[in-house]
Amino acid sequence: MEAKYKKIKQSIKSKILEGLIIPHEKISSETVLMEKFKVSRHTVRLALGELVNEGWLYREQGAGTFCADRSSIQKRSTYELPAKNIAIITTYISEYIFPSIIRGAESFLSEKGYHVSIFNTNNKHDQEQRVLEKIINGNYDGVILEPTNSASANPNLRYYLMMEKELIPYVMINADYDELEPVSFMLDDVRGGYLQTKHLLELGHSDIACMYKTDDAQGRKRLKGYIRAHRELQVAINPKNIISYHTENMNSKPFDALKMIMDAKNNAPTAIVCYNDQLVLRLMDMLREDNIAIPEHMSFVGYDDSMLAEISEVKLTSIVHPKSQMGIDAAKAMISMIEKKSQYHNQDLSILYEPALKVRQSTVSVKKGADIS
Amino acid sequence: MEAKYKKIKQSIKSKILEGLIIPHEKISSETVLMEKFKVSRHTVRLALGELVNEGWLYREQGAGTFCADRSSIQKRSTYELPAKNIAIITTYISEYIFPSIIRGAESFLSEKGYHVSIFNTNNKHDQEQRVLEKIINGNYDGVILEPTNSASANPNLRYYLMMEKELIPYVMINADYDELEPVSFMLDDVRGGYLQTKHLLELGHSDIACMYKTDDAQGRKRLKGYIRAHRELQVAINPKNIISYHTENMNSKPFDALKMIMDAKNNAPTAIVCYNDQLVLRLMDMLREDNIAIPEHMSFVGYDDSMLAEISEVKLTSIVHPKSQMGIDAAKAMISMIEKKSQYHNQDLSILYEPALKVRQSTVSVKKGADIS
Repeated sequence: MEAKYKKIKQSIKSKILEGLIIPHEKISSETVLMEKFKVSRHTVRLALGELVNEGWLYREQGAGTFCADRSSIQKRSTYELPAKNIAIITTYISEYIFPSIIRGAESFLSEKGYHVSIFNTNNKHDQEQRVLEKIINGNYDGVILEPTNSASANPNLRYYLMMEKELIPYVMINADYDELEPVSFMLDDVRGGYLQTKHLLELGHSDIACMYKTDDAQGRKRLKGYIRAHRELQVAINPKNIISYHTENMNSKPFDALKMIMDAKNNAPTAIVCYNDQLVLRLMDMLREDNIAIPEHMSFVGYDDSMLAEISEVKLTSIVHPKSQMGIDAAKAMISMIEKKSQYHNQDLSILYEPALKVRQSTVSVKKGADIS
Repeated sequence: MEAKYKKIKQSIKSKILEGLIIPHEKISSETVLMEKFKVSRHTVRLALGELVNEGWLYREQGAGTFCADRSSIQKRSTYELPAKNIAIITTYISEYIFPSIIRGAESFLSEKGYHVSIFNTNNKHDQEQRVLEKIINGNYDGVILEPTNSASANPNLRYYLMMEKELIPYVMINADYDELEPVSFMLDDVRGGYLQTKHLLELGHSDIACMYKTDDAQGRKRLKGYIRAHRELQVAINPKNIISYHTENMNSKPFDALKMIMDAKNNAPTAIVCYNDQLVLRLMDMLREDNIAIPEHMSFVGYDDSMLAEISEVKLTSIVHPKSQMGIDAAKAMISMIEKKSQYHNQDLSILYEPALKVRQSTVSVKKGADIS
């Protein structure tokens, strides 16, 4: 029963947060809610009672239960968070490059007296929704976020508009939800994919596979750069070389694809450009087990110029990501938006970083490469 | 059994068309195929036999079965299609604006001696794949297509690259697959959504709902325009007013949303901007049943300025779409690309049409509107 009344509470809270129930709007009657959730009157009363106590609803004798006007509530007094708070939302809190970005933002914000809370969405829109509800309902002065599943239409745009209404500024890093035209801090990923590919083409490779994660906008842009480089240098693309994967199959598809590539022996590509350094390392590991020499038999270009690029056995040629600088820049803009309440969409605050290629050992001229078989 | 051998045939053909099996590559042995498809040797032989007869595979005594080099086949002689063929791929062959676009293209192409074939994908990527296989396998000189599900990453990009390899030029209408940077003919949809919304804001509406189909790039762009207009005219957006739907729920979500809107009575928006005229007509019909006067109680702005805008009881304010002119322009570019084989990605051929607003009877100043209740 406890689970049931919580479900009713959450459902009503979500509707209020989404703006589907507005202040002073009458809530459905107990009888309607009993029917809708298939529960007893007692359970409905328990849920409504708590929502009234928590300030989400109010009762009017003889008239019914109504949605409270939360904008008039003194939020700060009802929460235990300190006074100045920034939320950072990422897709994954991995040990990859996010710690650097977050460190950059955190160092700047804490100097300015802000407390930073970290959330993650696992790149799923429903998890993003729950995080956004927490933030709107909480006591945050601003949000720095990495968009979730940014290559598809976002079903949570309402929450961002709700933040604007509640005067909670937000900035986006790595990608953006284009419809909102937010202040953003992004690497020029079309250019990044272009530089990855052009480097290999100039080394004489003409059969280059790419493996990009295309449920994120970054991956689609890098693929565009890969195609553009081929066209500019007038090298025909072998259609089988386009390998795109999603969050759901990120742990299987690239590796199945590598297996197929290696089975092709003499018809295998001589180089692979990858979505990030992490992927390169895992692919190189697979080849090492088969005693395939890198870069002699396969060149790799990574992305992000992460710590992995430096510590792997074969040091990676990779695209430089601004990492902690991106975090610092996003935090600076955030503070400026909080202080001058009018700049929420001031595109002068946005930065598009120019990527650079860092050449190390994982790429080699195709002439120096030996036949695989 | 017939179904099974056809399945094997189709699977091998797909792999060849996708470039996963390349000319002169050895096909898996009969035993491997028997195991993979869980069929008898007889069934495998039937499938391979037909593929050999149809020129997809060839046998070499004692060595096995190999993928044929289809580029050397004289295609024209093996098909019964006339010599000059253009394929037009649309998402829906509805009675909506597509017939005008197609008529425009068809009239121009037939004058030039081309035969036009029409395909549709129902806005599904797997259906698009089957159509593309047919086209690559067929005898087409060029393809005019409307992208399928264009707001998401397209899993069929390989087929477009395959077309480039086979020197089949393509142009895109209404939207594009950005990664390919194709020659395209599109309406400026951000501007279109902006004009729809600005018109209502200037009429004094401040509570405007939008209903856009966001699995197509057009819908996402129009939504961007809707948001931009609000910001530019400094009117706060009510988050609940953002209603986005997909192909899957296009026949339910907008209508459920209208029901909720009308239940809100005094809190209901005073105007709705719609993805297209077709949607406006269906929504107006729902309101008419409830005896709600249009435009006095609800203003509507359509999109496409279709025949429907003129023939409905209340004539629609709508955004003008170039329709048959778009078809003619796309056909002209197509012919130019066929004649000068080098211009496949010449962006000078692309056209971004400037939308215009056609004001009729479905919108009215909010001051003239009466209270709904």
